[in-house]
Amino acid sequence: MDVVSNKALLQIYEILEGTSNKKSSRIIQTFIMTLISVNVFMVILETEQSVQQYLSLFYYFEVFSVIVFTVEYAARLISYRHNPKYRNSKYGLARMLVSPMMLADLAAILPFFLPFIIADARFIRVIRLFRLLRLFRSAKYSRSIQMLGEVIKSKAHDLGVAFFILFIVLIFSSSLLYYLEHDAQPEVFSSIAVSMWWGIITLTTIGYGDMYPVTSAGKAVASGIAVLGIAVYAIPTGIVASAFTEEMRKKRYKDNKCPYCGRPNE
Amino acid sequence: MDVVSNKALLQIYEILEGTSNKKSSRIIQTFIMTLISVNVFMVILETEQSVQQYLSLFYYFEVFSVIVFTVEYAARLISYRHNPKYRNSKYGLARMLVSPMMLADLAAILPFFLPFIIADARFIRVIRLFRLLRLFRSAKYSRSIQMLGEVIKSKAHDLGVAFFILFIVLIFSSSLLYYLEHDAQPEVFSSIAVSMWWGIITLTTIGYGDMYPVTSAGKAVASGIAVLGIAVYAIPTGIVASAFTEEMRKKRYKDNKCPYCGRPNE
Amino acid sequence: MDVVSNKALLQIYEILEGTSNKKSSRIIQTFIMTLISVNVFMVILETEQSVQQYLSLFYYFEVFSVIVFTVEYAARLISYRHNPKYRNSKYGLARMLVSPMMLADLAAILPFFLPFIIADARFIRVIRLFRLLRLFRSAKYSRSIQMLGEVIKSKAHDLGVAFFILFIVLIFSSSLLYYLEHDAQPEVFSSIAVSMWWGIITLTTIGYGDMYPVTSAGKAVASGIAVLGIAVYAIPTGIVASAFTEEMRKKRYKDNKCPYCGRPNE
Amino acid sequence: MDVVSNKALLQIYEILEGTSNKKSSRIIQTFIMTLISVNVFMVILETEQSVQQYLSLFYYFEVFSVIVFTVEYAARLISYRHNPKYRNSKYGLARMLVSPMMLADLAAILPFFLPFIIADARFIRVIRLFRLLRLFRSAKYSRSIQMLGEVIKSKAHDLGVAFFILFIVLIFSSSLLYYLEHDAQPEVFSSIAVSMWWGIITLTTIGYGDMYPVTSAGKAVASGIAVLGIAVYAIPTGIVASAFTEEMRKKRYKDNKCPYCGRPNE
Repeated sequence: MDVVSNKALLQIYEILEGTSNKKSSRIIQTFIMTLISVNVFMVILETEQSVQQYLSLFYYFEVFSVIVFTVEYAARLISYRHNPKYRNSKYGLARMLVSPMMLADLAAILPFFLPFIIADARFIRVIRLFRLLRLFRSAKYSRSIQMLGEVIKSKAHDLGVAFFILFIVLIFSSSLLYYLEHDAQPEVFSSIAVSMWWGIITLTTIGYGDMYPVTSAGKAVASGIAVLGIAVYAIPTGIVASAFTEEMRKKRYKDNKCPYCGRPNE
Repeated sequence: MDVVSNKALLQIYEILEGTSNKKSSRIIQTFIMTLISVNVFMVILETEQSVQQYLSLFYYFEVFSVIVFTVEYAARLISYRHNPKYRNSKYGLARMLVSPMMLADLAAILPFFLPFIIADARFIRVIRLFRLLRLFRSAKYSRSIQMLGEVIKSKAHDLGVAFFILFIVLIFSSSLLYYLEHDAQPEVFSSIAVSMWWGIITLTTIGYGDMYPVTSAGKAVASGIAVLGIAVYAIPTGIVASAFTEEMRKKRYKDNKCPYCGRPNE
Repeated sequence: MDVVSNKALLQIYEILEGTSNKKSSRIIQTFIMTLISVNVFMVILETEQSVQQYLSLFYYFEVFSVIVFTVEYAARLISYRHNPKYRNSKYGLARMLVSPMMLADLAAILPFFLPFIIADARFIRVIRLFRLLRLFRSAKYSRSIQMLGEVIKSKAHDLGVAFFILFIVLIFSSSLLYYLEHDAQPEVFSSIAVSMWWGIITLTTIGYGDMYPVTSAGKAVASGIAVLGIAVYAIPTGIVASAFTEEMRKKRYKDNKCPYCGRPNE
Repeated sequence: MDVVSNKALLQIYEILEGTSNKKSSRIIQTFIMTLISVNVFMVILETEQSVQQYLSLFYYFEVFSVIVFTVEYAARLISYRHNPKYRNSKYGLARMLVSPMMLADLAAILPFFLPFIIADARFIRVIRLFRLLRLFRSAKYSRSIQMLGEVIKSKAHDLGVAFFILFIVLIFSSSLLYYLEHDAQPEVFSSIAVSMWWGIITLTTIGYGDMYPVTSAGKAVASGIAVLGIAVYAIPTGIVASAFTEEMRKKRYKDNKCPYCGRPNE
């Protein structure tokens, strides 16, 4: 590959990553983000009864979108050597292909070509949803989303334990309620798996009202579970709150200020 | 404009802003706040079936209120030169006219004159609601509401990101549930837009019970969404809690006390 | 009053307040607290269908309880001079009579004598509930409940503002929903006051499902209110969490330890 | 007991506790944890309608599991002298037998032998649930669950007071609603005990919708209770959040770093 085309690839890379300050880069970035947003809106709109007669217009927009997204995907691929994450790596192209972002991008264009291969329309629709994941890409530039990500990551282990306990409480609660309510409501609490739906909807305090105990024993036990469910919110919230407090302390330290009072260090 | 009338305008301004210590100022302030509160009570009361025969009394009270509010609005306008926010500004009067507070005040009196212009009674009623916004004005004097406002403001960006993620989770959840439940409940999950109502009511843990999944796949996915919904409360609460902790640290610093132990600085 | 009887009154006071270390004091304290708990249990039990035939037994227990509580009330009154809060005060006895604790105690015994005076049985039953308030008295000895009280008190103003904003949001939401839903569901959203029931149940995320919007406009506005409702939990929780963090910092300071690391001060 | 068999018991103890680094120990640990997980899955699965014809296969798996668990239980018992908690204690074996973990283990194997003794199948099923408690054992090795346990423990007293207040609020609310709603809905609010089910489901914001007030007075009081219910989440969450913040401060101190800025101590 000669130097000139390499420079062109660098330009393509910078435009796609938004690291270029050129006006053309900003326009292309804005255009693609807008197209993704309109696509999401179209996915929602095309399920409305009142637009079923204009579905052919949706198809033309779909063709246009897929062409743009395919060109972008190809441009990313051919300029991969300028991506510092994959440049110096053996199998860099392969590793890029299986990165979550590129898989999401592929999933956003593949459903258009898939109909010729897969028959089940439901499966295609679900795949089409991955198009929505591209909205997260726009957040790549946001420092806030990275900060939020770091806060969650720093507490991932504690949150994992909290959800593991939630899971055990869920199994225990659902089994107990099944044994207590099955005889009174054999149709409603028909199996432990079905009771787990009740357990989730109760522990998260949603409470649709499609399933609830009717026997005195079931209500008494469910009352205890409901009170236990307060911890489902108190513990993760407590973990996240302390992580944010810690994050702010770190930030003051990084800004070279006294981490307690915010006075600049001498 | 001569000096005397200028002095009168200053008095009007100080009475309206509550910065005057005169007894007359306090009386007028209390009178207007009471009138606003009674107006809000009247808006609620006039929808009761049992008072429909006394609606003419309501009209007399309405006329009285609108006169007071119109006089107050006019007084604010003519004394605008004493408001430090608009005094030295070119187009000061125009900028004041479009400030949120003045627009709310205008919306509180306009519905009375609007019937001659607009025909749709429903639209007028909705506008009349802006009268309620005046209650927020009474809080202008409260230091607590300002503190709360500053706390929220200092974290506005992080909260914005949290709500952006909530929005993406909402679209994803609602679309997924639509595809999983549409065949089983075509009347209930009739479109993605309708499913989004389910999504909001589930993620905020309200759970009315007017829409819920009935298929096993729908329940399994909805369970995951319900657990994800814990973050809807944990993340904003964590952000707000750390902001309040930070606010208290700043306050101790401002009071010239050691920000850790509360001992006064030497 | 001679010295001897004064000494007897002091003993009565110390036994009732639990400040005496004598065994008799502890027995009487335990006896009264147990009697209150059993009374609460009896209030709950006497509404059960299955015990209606034993109601005369309940009456004998009631007579016994009222006698004990009346004796205790009288003992408190005659020993009021040893209570440091009222001893040196003019009208000390009168001030003690209208203190919340003494009023609750009076309300606990009065319903027994009231039937001869007041006819409406429902009103008496509601008064009888004040007996439950005595359970709070048992907590008087607990340092934890005092700490909790101080935390809430130190943030009472901020919490008040938060609830004032909640109140305005409630009025606004309920009025809006009334105007949007009244035409579609005139029986359900029959007045703004009725809509406020919907507003409370939605903002607190309870969501019984007895009232919910059915029109698209109503659902769209209610979605926004539901998201706003996240603040109903995030703001009070954030305030309370920062107050507890502050409380722990103060406690370390009081224990004469370094308020940051907990190392004892030299 | 001679030295050789004592050494064998030590090996058994180390394998069961996971303190041995031998490959065989890790394999046995993994095998037992997997068997427990599969057992839990089986408890859930055997209630499904579609597997009722394969119940004999479940029985064979049950026999196999009980044999493994019985062998493990026996192995723990005979090697108890190597457990530092019980080694030097008089009645060490007896104290170990009544420890929660050993009781849970016993409850996991006993139901298999119980059918010959106890007749009521429902009671056996409930006991069988204790098998699920073994999943908590796997967490013994996790530092995170210990940390979470310590956080909860350090605030156990404050949380206890919070739940005591919740309990009093619950009794008060439920009694009040009973007296207000009993006449309008005698079948729904049939007794205070039944109203307490409403109270729990409302205060925890679940809101199934099987019970709710219909009278104006009932709705007004229930609105107040719903707002009070915000404290049910705000207070425990605040306590837990401050405990986590405190825990992180202690951890920084233990790591021999400055507890404020994270810089290592000199």
